[in-house]
Amino acid sequence: MGSDSDLPVMQDAAKVLEELGITSEVHTLSAHRTPEAVVEYVRTSEAEGYKVFICGAGGAAHLAGVVAAHTALPVIGVPIMNKTTAGVDALFSTVQMPPGIPVATVAINGAKNAGILAAQIIGAGDSNVLQNVRTFKEKMAKDITVKDATLQEKGFKKYLEDAGLI
Amino acid sequence: MGSDSDLPVMQDAAKVLEELGITSEVHTLSAHRTPEAVVEYVRTSEAEGYKVFICGAGGAAHLAGVVAAHTALPVIGVPIMNKTTAGVDALFSTVQMPPGIPVATVAINGAKNAGILAAQIIGAGDSNVLQNVRTFKEKMAKDITVKDATLQEKGFKKYLEDAGLI
Amino acid sequence: MGSDSDLPVMQDAAKVLEELGITSEVHTLSAHRTPEAVVEYVRTSEAEGYKVFICGAGGAAHLAGVVAAHTALPVIGVPIMNKTTAGVDALFSTVQMPPGIPVATVAINGAKNAGILAAQIIGAGDSNVLQNVRTFKEKMAKDITVKDATLQEKGFKKYLEDAGLI
Amino acid sequence: MGSDSDLPVMQDAAKVLEELGITSEVHTLSAHRTPEAVVEYVRTSEAEGYKVFICGAGGAAHLAGVVAAHTALPVIGVPIMNKTTAGVDALFSTVQMPPGIPVATVAINGAKNAGILAAQIIGAGDSNVLQNVRTFKEKMAKDITVKDATLQEKGFKKYLEDAGLI
Amino acid sequence: MGSDSDLPVMQDAAKVLEELGITSEVHTLSAHRTPEAVVEYVRTSEAEGYKVFICGAGGAAHLAGVVAAHTALPVIGVPIMNKTTAGVDALFSTVQMPPGIPVATVAINGAKNAGILAAQIIGAGDSNVLQNVRTFKEKMAKDITVKDATLQEKGFKKYLEDAGLI
Amino acid sequence: MGSDSDLPVMQDAAKVLEELGITSEVHTLSAHRTPEAVVEYVRTSEAEGYKVFICGAGGAAHLAGVVAAHTALPVIGVPIMNKTTAGVDALFSTVQMPPGIPVATVAINGAKNAGILAAQIIGAGDSNVLQNVRTFKEKMAKDITVKDATLQEKGFKKYLEDAGLI
Amino acid sequence: MGSDSDLPVMQDAAKVLEELGITSEVHTLSAHRTPEAVVEYVRTSEAEGYKVFICGAGGAAHLAGVVAAHTALPVIGVPIMNKTTAGVDALFSTVQMPPGIPVATVAINGAKNAGILAAQIIGAGDSNVLQNVRTFKEKMAKDITVKDATLQEKGFKKYLEDAGLI
Amino acid sequence: MGSDSDLPVMQDAAKVLEELGITSEVHTLSAHRTPEAVVEYVRTSEAEGYKVFICGAGGAAHLAGVVAAHTALPVIGVPIMNKTTAGVDALFSTVQMPPGIPVATVAINGAKNAGILAAQIIGAGDSNVLQNVRTFKEKMAKDITVKDATLQEKGFKKYLEDAGLI
Repeated sequence: MGSDSDLPVMQDAAKVLEELGITSEVHTLSAHRTPEAVVEYVRTSEAEGYKVFICGAGGAAHLAGVVAAHTALPVIGVPIMNKTTAGVDALFSTVQMPPGIPVATVAINGAKNAGILAAQIIGAGDSNVLQNVRTFKEKMAKDITVKDATLQEKGFKKYLEDAGLI
Repeated sequence: MGSDSDLPVMQDAAKVLEELGITSEVHTLSAHRTPEAVVEYVRTSEAEGYKVFICGAGGAAHLAGVVAAHTALPVIGVPIMNKTTAGVDALFSTVQMPPGIPVATVAINGAKNAGILAAQIIGAGDSNVLQNVRTFKEKMAKDITVKDATLQEKGFKKYLEDAGLI
Repeated sequence: MGSDSDLPVMQDAAKVLEELGITSEVHTLSAHRTPEAVVEYVRTSEAEGYKVFICGAGGAAHLAGVVAAHTALPVIGVPIMNKTTAGVDALFSTVQMPPGIPVATVAINGAKNAGILAAQIIGAGDSNVLQNVRTFKEKMAKDITVKDATLQEKGFKKYLEDAGLI
Repeated sequence: MGSDSDLPVMQDAAKVLEELGITSEVHTLSAHRTPEAVVEYVRTSEAEGYKVFICGAGGAAHLAGVVAAHTALPVIGVPIMNKTTAGVDALFSTVQMPPGIPVATVAINGAKNAGILAAQIIGAGDSNVLQNVRTFKEKMAKDITVKDATLQEKGFKKYLEDAGLI
Repeated sequence: MGSDSDLPVMQDAAKVLEELGITSEVHTLSAHRTPEAVVEYVRTSEAEGYKVFICGAGGAAHLAGVVAAHTALPVIGVPIMNKTTAGVDALFSTVQMPPGIPVATVAINGAKNAGILAAQIIGAGDSNVLQNVRTFKEKMAKDITVKDATLQEKGFKKYLEDAGLI
Repeated sequence: MGSDSDLPVMQDAAKVLEELGITSEVHTLSAHRTPEAVVEYVRTSEAEGYKVFICGAGGAAHLAGVVAAHTALPVIGVPIMNKTTAGVDALFSTVQMPPGIPVATVAINGAKNAGILAAQIIGAGDSNVLQNVRTFKEKMAKDITVKDATLQEKGFKKYLEDAGLI
Repeated sequence: MGSDSDLPVMQDAAKVLEELGITSEVHTLSAHRTPEAVVEYVRTSEAEGYKVFICGAGGAAHLAGVVAAHTALPVIGVPIMNKTTAGVDALFSTVQMPPGIPVATVAINGAKNAGILAAQIIGAGDSNVLQNVRTFKEKMAKDITVKDATLQEKGFKKYLEDAGLI
Repeated sequence: MGSDSDLPVMQDAAKVLEELGITSEVHTLSAHRTPEAVVEYVRTSEAEGYKVFICGAGGAAHLAGVVAAHTALPVIGVPIMNKTTAGVDALFSTVQMPPGIPVATVAINGAKNAGILAAQIIGAGDSNVLQNVRTFKEKMAKDITVKDATLQEKGFKKYLEDAGLI
């Protein structure tokens, strides 16, 4: 990520990767302030066998694009919301890449999905990881099914009260 | 893709996959008009060992999300421009997926990048494909280097004339 | 609705339907996490004689579109605001449906209007319900008329003070 | 519709209603230039037993809102694209109605869907019309299925050529 | 204004009109919920010799357009911000009027400017009022000049502290 | 207007003013390139008894704001569309004026409405001009009424054909 | 800057200029409320040998454009966020200048960067100042490098806790 | 510039620099496809005494940011319009730079202003160049003055005809 102020958002990627049984590293490296360190890191990581990069940045979010310029591995971009343009600037800066250099962009502040997508990418070549993703998705489905059952049982008024959503 | 009117854009994905040595299928399947066929296709393809889905759609572009709902494989979304909101509607409909179900979104009309990203994803688990992506990127770099050399040689005025860009 | 976090908004639909004398059910069903449950619910409900679906979702709000894909009954969509793009993403994802599969879209977070619209739709074929809508609208008009009379009586400064709007 | 310049878009509503076996009237009535005529028309039509209003307008598209203010029947709004803001102004002016007065909004220039939605609304209280909608949707699905079969047969390159889409 | 919830914003128009020596009335009248009352009020006011209408509304802000449809007098529109689309919906709904029926639109939440503009309009035909506007503008200029002098005297750090702006 | 390239749009203001019996002058004066000439013109015109300024400009449309800074007379702003941001930049630059200095903004490219609004402003203090505006509005209403009668007579298909709108 | 309410943002420009060893003045001067004072200040400052102007304003942010109209020196514009349109209005009003009169625009609320850019501009003709900018950038890079080292040492969970970012 | 397809826009910068007596080089170098060449060029140019960089790019326009990351010299960014999001993506990607690394952004497609701004930056340390900018601005002012005189002489109708603007 481009700044440690992005960490409260980006930690969700690290956490879900852990949950899906995938090793990751978390770094603060800036495309604009430490450009050589970014390139150095990309090359080293690729050589060490890392499979996917996840880059989170806000505003003129160039980090994912800069990483993608230096690797043939897939790069996932997480546009991060700021207070002025609500993340649309980061979304455009991340997703509108020119032909030849894609960045796999997820939702604004969508760090959790970046982690899951990284697992899916690794899973495309590793059936154990793919199975972990399947299990993860089944758990999500079950959570919703349980919530809906509770909702039918309690009715929406009591459900709201009990969940503290009023 | 959701409609055959998307094919002039989406053909670029098929073409670049061919160039990168990857087999692909091109289908017209609509999340809204043939929803069962979409689900059926996703399940069959996954069972047959397909590795990545690329979905192109415009407007309320739900196709990528619907596919992602039925597979643990990575899903790439191509938002397609229409005449009214210039593709921002399709971009939001594709990229703003809820936590748990990512869609790897590329630029508006970015079908070529969708193909390259698919190759990168497969390449994360297949070093031959990864090498093809590297070669492809080197070729692109060389093209620009040649163009810049021509530009220095001719000067920008003559370059524009000769390229028919005036 | 796609998530129980939408319930604080969506409860307004259930409440106004109750006020208009119409039976409704409230469910949490996700187009992306429990897609089969959505389809199952739509089919069962249509068979049981339900007349209208109201779907609320945020971000890449696909729920209304997915429901509309599986029924010939009218589907109302409520785009729900999130913190990043202020609901414009959900609005586009809900309203920009392709030719053939309409979603009757109401305002961002407009769950109350979704309920009233559902009543109007049922009212188009049921004069008792239509009369309930008329009575509801007359009551709204009267509320404003009373407020304006109070405003004239008190003057705007005192009105603001008394209403706690300063 | 607010102006006869909207007719090239709005004719699609009339045509699909005809196809679905529903009688309709097409009028040019302006919320801003002939406001009394709008109100008069709404009252007369409701008295004559019309079931739904479809209103198309561009820019500060007030027509649907003005109609909705004078009837308890469902009102469908079609935001119409202009050259300056690409229809987003008309979309906001149509969909962002205040609590109490919904307008069932379809896509920008989505006149065909407005007609289908009107049929669905009438179909909610008339099983013959509902059946017409079902038949219509089945025909759409079949069209796509046939197109996809052709695409598989020809391959995407020949398909594009034959369809004149290159 | 369309709702008394707009009063905290709209009171600024009434206050500045008072300051500029112009009589005004403040009403809550809804284009959608009490449309006949709006028309009635416009006609009565015009007959009584009122010179300008100021209309404040949010969302699909139709009030100014509806008023403009029923009078030849100038109509000023104040788009009011809501929580979802930050007032851009109200801005478009107010300003994008069709040829023939202008609404003189001021900034989002710009009720004070609406009052000043009303005074300028009356001032175009009344030199006393015009003089009041001139005096008002001179006072504003002087306020800034004094503030700048204070800023030079104190320096920006102390100025911020003293003004409680840190 | 800021440039003679704005004249194809702005001529509509001059034409409708002529139709409404009001004398006007058309000038090309740039807030950025000839700022002193703008100020000089504003002062001279005000001294000569001109009543309203109409300013048309595109992009960072500052002309109306600069004129408003130098006069107490009402200033009407016409945001002019360009090819890049479709006039939204000019709209914001014209309408979002700070408290104290309003610009009466009309629609993007809404020069005709600027002329009508100028007439309404003059009409607020001149009953002859107000009567001209009333007559103008009645004529517009009649045009629509005639068009609707023709539409009923011909049916929408023949109407489209005859009007060359297909 | 156009108002002292902009000072909490704009102070960052003054502070970074101080840090970079450059003398600056901070003024409140309004393009709309004290236009003559703006012109007077620009002329005097240019005569006194000032090298760059930095202008911060919100909404219809005309200040930078007005300053640029009266000087051949470079003008930097800082669009300032307001509560309604989140600074996009000020961005467009500042950046979309017509051919001939550029404003060097920085990010919304980017006053610190305005100060750095001013130093870079002066540095283009003054190698001492350029060296100060280099030193400043090296310090920024080092800060990030240190943060990343800390992050590797602590791990992201403890880092978040210690930094109070949870 | 990032691609030779940007040359029809970017040539205006080279041309105006020539007109202002400043030497420039025009290159095609891509932040994403030839990142090392970009860095190499920036370093060489700075060492050779170049004073300003002008970078034009569209979409996720990272070029200016990448250049700014590698130099302490001022960097000017020209966001280039594409067909999908009309240049707003490039504007955000160019202007919304993080604190510490400014890019002096001009209007979408504003290459001419980029050239003038470069001259103004050089002019801040070189009085001959500054004088060239002054002469250039005087010429622009005179052009408008002449056009306005012609407009007064011919009247707007004949002016439009003669200028071929109808």
